[in-house]
Amino acid sequence: MRANSPFPSIAQALEQIETGALRARDLAEHCLERIEARDTEVKAFVAHDAGRVRARADAVDAGECKGLLRGIPYAVKDVIETAEYPTGYGSPLYLGNRSARDAACVALSKEEGAVLLGKVVTSEFATQTPGPTCNPLNLAHTPGGSSSGSAAAVADGMAMVAWGTQTTGSITRPAVYCGVVGYKPSFGLVSTAGVSVLSPSQDTVGVLARSVADAGALVLGIHGRRYESAPDDARYTVGLCLSSQWQHASGQAIDALRNWTAKLAASGIAVKECVLPAAYEALIADQSRMVAYDARQALAYERLTANARLSPRLRERLAGGSLIGLDEYLAMQQRASALRCGVDGLFDGVDALVYPAADDEAEEGILQSGSPRFGALWTLLHVPTVALPLDVGRGGLPLGAQLVGRPRRDLSLLQLAEHASAFSPWLTGVR
Amino acid sequence: MRANSPFPSIAQALEQIETGALRARDLAEHCLERIEARDTEVKAFVAHDAGRVRARADAVDAGECKGLLRGIPYAVKDVIETAEYPTGYGSPLYLGNRSARDAACVALSKEEGAVLLGKVVTSEFATQTPGPTCNPLNLAHTPGGSSSGSAAAVADGMAMVAWGTQTTGSITRPAVYCGVVGYKPSFGLVSTAGVSVLSPSQDTVGVLARSVADAGALVLGIHGRRYESAPDDARYTVGLCLSSQWQHASGQAIDALRNWTAKLAASGIAVKECVLPAAYEALIADQSRMVAYDARQALAYERLTANARLSPRLRERLAGGSLIGLDEYLAMQQRASALRCGVDGLFDGVDALVYPAADDEAEEGILQSGSPRFGALWTLLHVPTVALPLDVGRGGLPLGAQLVGRPRRDLSLLQLAEHASAFSPWLTGVR
Repeated sequence: MRANSPFPSIAQALEQIETGALRARDLAEHCLERIEARDTEVKAFVAHDAGRVRARADAVDAGECKGLLRGIPYAVKDVIETAEYPTGYGSPLYLGNRSARDAACVALSKEEGAVLLGKVVTSEFATQTPGPTCNPLNLAHTPGGSSSGSAAAVADGMAMVAWGTQTTGSITRPAVYCGVVGYKPSFGLVSTAGVSVLSPSQDTVGVLARSVADAGALVLGIHGRRYESAPDDARYTVGLCLSSQWQHASGQAIDALRNWTAKLAASGIAVKECVLPAAYEALIADQSRMVAYDARQALAYERLTANARLSPRLRERLAGGSLIGLDEYLAMQQRASALRCGVDGLFDGVDALVYPAADDEAEEGILQSGSPRFGALWTLLHVPTVALPLDVGRGGLPLGAQLVGRPRRDLSLLQLAEHASAFSPWLTGVR
Repeated sequence: MRANSPFPSIAQALEQIETGALRARDLAEHCLERIEARDTEVKAFVAHDAGRVRARADAVDAGECKGLLRGIPYAVKDVIETAEYPTGYGSPLYLGNRSARDAACVALSKEEGAVLLGKVVTSEFATQTPGPTCNPLNLAHTPGGSSSGSAAAVADGMAMVAWGTQTTGSITRPAVYCGVVGYKPSFGLVSTAGVSVLSPSQDTVGVLARSVADAGALVLGIHGRRYESAPDDARYTVGLCLSSQWQHASGQAIDALRNWTAKLAASGIAVKECVLPAAYEALIADQSRMVAYDARQALAYERLTANARLSPRLRERLAGGSLIGLDEYLAMQQRASALRCGVDGLFDGVDALVYPAADDEAEEGILQSGSPRFGALWTLLHVPTVALPLDVGRGGLPLGAQLVGRPRRDLSLLQLAEHASAFSPWLTGVR
């Protein structure tokens, strides 16, 4: 187990809590200690209240809730509403903003017995202007975004697991940058109730976790289901999905990916190469324009009442949205819809695709959070992805890749990803 | 022009405001007078503030905004957030609940110069338990739901147009019950930012209006586009889409529909008959179960913290959601997705489908709001629909039908519906 991962897995923790070998309070104290020790530097949390966390953990220990996430301490990205803590959307406009309710994913986590630790930093409205969070692996570097706090809190052992969101690459990239697992479920698998809207056809609620199994446990848990690993004799085929986007990945990022797939192949997983069809390539440029159009609509109130208090980058993005006409927007939606309908064709003969997750290691400085580009297509296509950190780069920070699955076949993808994660030196600590 | 429609069309109003022949303040005063005179009986509004309305209208008259909806007075369903008025979701749990911002459709309406009149009644969380609104055509009868206040306010001349939402049949049915036009746009055409979530894959923002052109003007207006009628020589083919659901429509409802299509045929529109394929029939039952599953997740906070203050009907619905397993839910989503991908096949050789909109005239009493069944399939399929009142039934209330178009071909559907609405005795007043 990695030094900054003081926890058992969620499955182990649930078992130990069940037998009385572990208390929810113990897990909560681990997190609170870590937050106390580290968060003045990492700056992952926007709001947390130790007294509230302890009271909730004690209530769970007293038997108040015996659900599938009993006692699991988790953090929530600050674009997701909570009744107990303000929801600030990473914008000075909403400092201290109170919501009357919990988002669906928060209420359902609570129903299953999870212990809410607090709210964690998001980039401004889950777009590209970062918050104050630093990469816990190297504080001089970005944790990625927009689920920066979620990734950093989990990577640093301040939370066992965290809810995040992705509209382009906001789970995938910070997961790899911080060295944790990022699971973007199939579009719609986690309810968006109570989650701020950016692009309604792309906004996806997902998870940052220390392992694939933990990520699966959270998402399946809120649906009343346990995550189960694949049988030992499962046979897989993955497709290395080549595209023009690969030119943006550094040599060492591609090396890490290829070293990993070589190990997968050596372990008996069949690895093919395939080329992303041109129509899908074309969709990548559309994706960014669709987000700009949608965000201009979604953030109309902020744009109209407080434009000067939006970040220059966001202002520019929203202004860009105004240059896109309705007909063009609908044509882009039409193309996206058509390609979603044909997406099974990308998986002919393979169980999942392998794709880069980020350009390179997390860059230095926290004013930029890296490019979300490798998430764009998969978010638009509504397919589930699991990003895995694989190996350490020359700068000492992780390099990774993502596995992409068929729509709504999340469990299969998670099982494959769990199996494949055993060949990640970063995740296994064997390096 | 109907007696309870004191307004010009939106296009006429915009022209008159442009030339100075009409002021935004005049339109606002019309609405305020009507609200004053009638709303103690109709009970469409939850909140409105005459001073605020006048101030806004005067600001528009002073040239503050010259957009595509300049001076148009409109109402907003109370599941849609507004900064100026509380948002109560039709639930005692949220009485007086304040939101920090306007929903996208509200902010965009304002950007284009529209004048917000206030918030109008919704059924509880846009589900089936009605609010206090009465049908303005006969106060002893339901206005339908869940966009009850939107339909009643427009039907009674208290608002020129209103935003509503539909997850099953919440625009279609109240439109016909109250004798107005109900336009449910293609899924995603109007941003759901700031709109309460019930079923993220079905929630659709739409419009209640006095005419098809007005409905088009509002939705296109927030996209910076004017609605334009079809050229006079446009040729159309519509398909009468028969299904087992027709058994739920009363004889007089079917008669009204068939009388109308006979007139369409006589006018030169080609009318075919087609039968809804069995796979689509099967989807209708899935739709209700998917909403139950989704609503149980979306309303988890309310269910967990205040279940006793939800209506018995909603409690029962949410409890029903708990009987559906994740695998079954995903299988339903899969079927819906596959049929959405094939939906163009329903429109082979026709420009639009004709389908019933409601079982019959609005029933007596306001504790029930009628069945949403005729909206279910089209909402799930993400296709645009325009519901039209056609003729008056034996009970003195309107009977109607809906036109269903191809996904994202909203303008074409609106143009066809505008043309076809000229053969509605109800809408033309020729009866």
